[in-house]
Amino acid sequence: MLTIAGLPLLMMPVVLCLLPIPAFADALVDNVNGITLDKDGRVIHFTGLLLTPDGKVSKLMKSGDKRPEKLDWRADMKGRVLLPGMIDAHGHVTELGFRALELDLSDTHSLAEAQAAIAAYAKANPERKWLLGGGWNQESWGLGRFPTAAELDMAVPDRPVWLSRADGHASWGNTAALTAAGVTVRSVSPPGGRIEKTGTRPSGVFVDAAQALVQKVVPAPLAKDRNAAFLKAQSILLGYGVTAVADMGTSLDDWMTYRRMGDVGALRVRIMSYGMGVDTAVQIGGTGPTPWLYNDRLRLNGVKLYADGALGSRGAWLKQPYADAPGQSGAGFMSDDVIRNLMSRAAMDNFQIAVHAIGDRANAQVLDAIDEMSDTYKGDRRWRIEHAQIVDPVDLPRLGKHGVIASMQPTHETSDRVMAEARLGPARLAGAYAWNSVLKNGGQLAFGSDFPVERPDPWAGWAAAFTRQGADGQPFGGWRPEERVTREQAWWAFTGGAAYAGFAEDKFGRLAPGQRADFIVVDRDPTLASPTELRATRVEETWVGGEKVWERK
Amino acid sequence: MLTIAGLPLLMMPVVLCLLPIPAFADALVDNVNGITLDKDGRVIHFTGLLLTPDGKVSKLMKSGDKRPEKLDWRADMKGRVLLPGMIDAHGHVTELGFRALELDLSDTHSLAEAQAAIAAYAKANPERKWLLGGGWNQESWGLGRFPTAAELDMAVPDRPVWLSRADGHASWGNTAALTAAGVTVRSVSPPGGRIEKTGTRPSGVFVDAAQALVQKVVPAPLAKDRNAAFLKAQSILLGYGVTAVADMGTSLDDWMTYRRMGDVGALRVRIMSYGMGVDTAVQIGGTGPTPWLYNDRLRLNGVKLYADGALGSRGAWLKQPYADAPGQSGAGFMSDDVIRNLMSRAAMDNFQIAVHAIGDRANAQVLDAIDEMSDTYKGDRRWRIEHAQIVDPVDLPRLGKHGVIASMQPTHETSDRVMAEARLGPARLAGAYAWNSVLKNGGQLAFGSDFPVERPDPWAGWAAAFTRQGADGQPFGGWRPEERVTREQAWWAFTGGAAYAGFAEDKFGRLAPGQRADFIVVDRDPTLASPTELRATRVEETWVGGEKVWERK
Repeated sequence: MLTIAGLPLLMMPVVLCLLPIPAFADALVDNVNGITLDKDGRVIHFTGLLLTPDGKVSKLMKSGDKRPEKLDWRADMKGRVLLPGMIDAHGHVTELGFRALELDLSDTHSLAEAQAAIAAYAKANPERKWLLGGGWNQESWGLGRFPTAAELDMAVPDRPVWLSRADGHASWGNTAALTAAGVTVRSVSPPGGRIEKTGTRPSGVFVDAAQALVQKVVPAPLAKDRNAAFLKAQSILLGYGVTAVADMGTSLDDWMTYRRMGDVGALRVRIMSYGMGVDTAVQIGGTGPTPWLYNDRLRLNGVKLYADGALGSRGAWLKQPYADAPGQSGAGFMSDDVIRNLMSRAAMDNFQIAVHAIGDRANAQVLDAIDEMSDTYKGDRRWRIEHAQIVDPVDLPRLGKHGVIASMQPTHETSDRVMAEARLGPARLAGAYAWNSVLKNGGQLAFGSDFPVERPDPWAGWAAAFTRQGADGQPFGGWRPEERVTREQAWWAFTGGAAYAGFAEDKFGRLAPGQRADFIVVDRDPTLASPTELRATRVEETWVGGEKVWERK
Repeated sequence: MLTIAGLPLLMMPVVLCLLPIPAFADALVDNVNGITLDKDGRVIHFTGLLLTPDGKVSKLMKSGDKRPEKLDWRADMKGRVLLPGMIDAHGHVTELGFRALELDLSDTHSLAEAQAAIAAYAKANPERKWLLGGGWNQESWGLGRFPTAAELDMAVPDRPVWLSRADGHASWGNTAALTAAGVTVRSVSPPGGRIEKTGTRPSGVFVDAAQALVQKVVPAPLAKDRNAAFLKAQSILLGYGVTAVADMGTSLDDWMTYRRMGDVGALRVRIMSYGMGVDTAVQIGGTGPTPWLYNDRLRLNGVKLYADGALGSRGAWLKQPYADAPGQSGAGFMSDDVIRNLMSRAAMDNFQIAVHAIGDRANAQVLDAIDEMSDTYKGDRRWRIEHAQIVDPVDLPRLGKHGVIASMQPTHETSDRVMAEARLGPARLAGAYAWNSVLKNGGQLAFGSDFPVERPDPWAGWAAAFTRQGADGQPFGGWRPEERVTREQAWWAFTGGAAYAGFAEDKFGRLAPGQRADFIVVDRDPTLASPTELRATRVEETWVGGEKVWERK
């Protein structure tokens, strides 16, 4: 009588697929100067891209290949350069959006310039009860010290102002903010954080965990603010040609925002999400990573943990004291036991584990934990170290031993090299930003920008990666040029390597049959461009899943 | 050149629909004794149900109608009775599952019987560190008082035991549980709650908000426990022929569970969700209700609030003192200001508002708030009062004034009538469980079971609704029979009325073209069955969205 029997639990969504599949025709993006890497990292050229109706690549076509006659649609790209979408292996999506909607000090070059920008923002935003923003960096101001609350009061005396440092590892408040938070001379630095002092009084800057002393009284953003921040971030990313990102530290509210966007079809960029801590990941994923959602646009891959702070604020955990602060070595955020317990708990449920580690001591701690855990948690784990910024050369071979992914940011090297020399002194630079050593030691490389710490500009990152030079071409010949990677290795780390780092290599990261049709149209050939030309690449169109989702106006 | 232009934000998911739609054939469920109500609540008969490939009803067919020749599949139901799926307008999905997986005392008829069941459960579950369960009711034990910790110690002396009362408004712990929670003679009843005492010492029972004193140390369930509880609840509901429910107080963890199930295609029953409090609803929905997700299987409709407690534990808020406890009138959970602020905040974002109100004072408070807010928040609001159990007759007309939905549970009347007479005395019974008065006064009626407080059995509820008699046929002629509704009115309140109460009347609730094909096959005709026969209805198959999702083994 009945042809559909009682269905096993997980087969239900398949039912409709048992019905006859109609013969949809394909679509063709034709007349392109198409360039991609293949799965072995070799450059491939093509002139047409045949797409399936569900937004995947079905074929790369050469000049002589006969084009199909029956097509749903055809786009003539008039010979322009077409590349796979770029992937940023380490960013903070929500923070990028908030930073873009709030006061951005990342282009200020002196304290005075910042004060002027802050005062102007206060005047332009009279309705905001708190003035929030970030991007300041006392190093790029040439200040040689942290700024103070009093200096912020000079710009805004009447309302709380709270501004995070470019690396997110310190924040700067004015007197109104400190008063609102109840910070006084009697306030004590919490574990993992430091209240900067002028004499015995809080000076206005709070490092790492101490930021929470003020952050806790900052009004939480509303859902509509979160939606707006996400859409802003997405638009920025697509404009740089970034079609997928690893979101490194997704909060529950971030996740709910991404889902709301997915639910209404507003999620365009692909997000590989790493929950902020084990509890968040478990609350989202339950017993493990989520499935890929919204046609491979969102997945909770795993967990983001923090082993230490950042180099700029001397929160990075070093084996030996800072060269420019002899009494300090930074501090680990967790004991060896705690980090192993958290990693075990996550690994037990097959969450992928990504640990922030900047200093050589922190990197060693994470590698020790991976060494120990690899015996218990076998299979394809893809342990990730985020930043892997300063690795003791004796520890480098351990990256290869367990196929660890070093998720690194080329522009951190060009932005930080002078500061890094000061913090570390010459003797410890051998394992600093050591991209080529990662590969030589058998580690996997994934590149990103750490946006909004740096701009989410993959072209700047790509150029930095094979030159070790900044936008100004300095230093001549590159900084520690032995750590350059090739142009193709760098491209791979921003595409297929970044996809592999997120268990997505079967879905996106290059243009090949079966991959999602995520591609960009740009104004030059990046395999032929000079480093300066490469940095100036203009993205003209960004396509995700065979749909144009961004176009330069 | 390019045929798909830059797409506006919300149109993206539509893109693939612009491609030619294939000519799928329909499916036919034929040879049925089909009965449904139409949108005006009139009985309609049919013999075949034509379905679209996406699981909607396309046509009700009569005997003489010619059947289509081209069909994807056809099911011959051999003349069996086919009805629209039943809808429970008020239940607690997750709690139903946990209750089913934990110790269930709802069938115990004396304290001694409960003690034996508890001891047996402890013996059968040596690995559980805490023994959890519920369903006890000192009234049905004929105890005339709450049980004590010492009486629970007699069953389990060595491990914490924590058991919730059938109505969820009180819990009972043993000494080990009280010790683990740090409850002592010095513990003070919190606002909105009461620690029961023997002399000056906590006796072991905690009412309403006081339950948190122990609940806070009960180990939280793991994600896998939540998944298991959901699947258990779903299976129970489908087995009763319930294809959609309003989940009245969805926690964030509940919501994440439902989404995990939806993401893997394991969500079968349709859930109209009401977030537990405004903050939960906002965290889930952001700026308003979610869209319907997973082919109309899940939507966050709005917010659940609580105006008072329950009658059994004397937590219901009455205008005059309890007849059987002259010094007590219960207590409102919120001041007038607080409830209005919460309702405003939710209404501002277009969340639907459902407020639990049992006592006549609580019902008046909610109606006052609705009176006031209806001027500000216009449009189709569908204010819901959950239970509306004891309404002062002078307040009844106010239900009609704003089209308020009284979301009521017929089996509460048959379970509680003796207790209600004791609590209220004869003078206040005129507005008790006053279903017919709700309709006569122009209110909307939606029926449910309040599972797991009562079994999620819509057949018992339906029979109670037009008889005011229990399963035992008592009392003769029905309890306050003037409050009976007709058989058809009751059916509507368990189908189309319950759908309307959840803004789902265009999606499900009856069998008609365009509605989701949610139907059940049962062993008798409920429009002809005696009340006793109706209660004994056996569901043989349950279909949701044109797929068979449950079958009697």
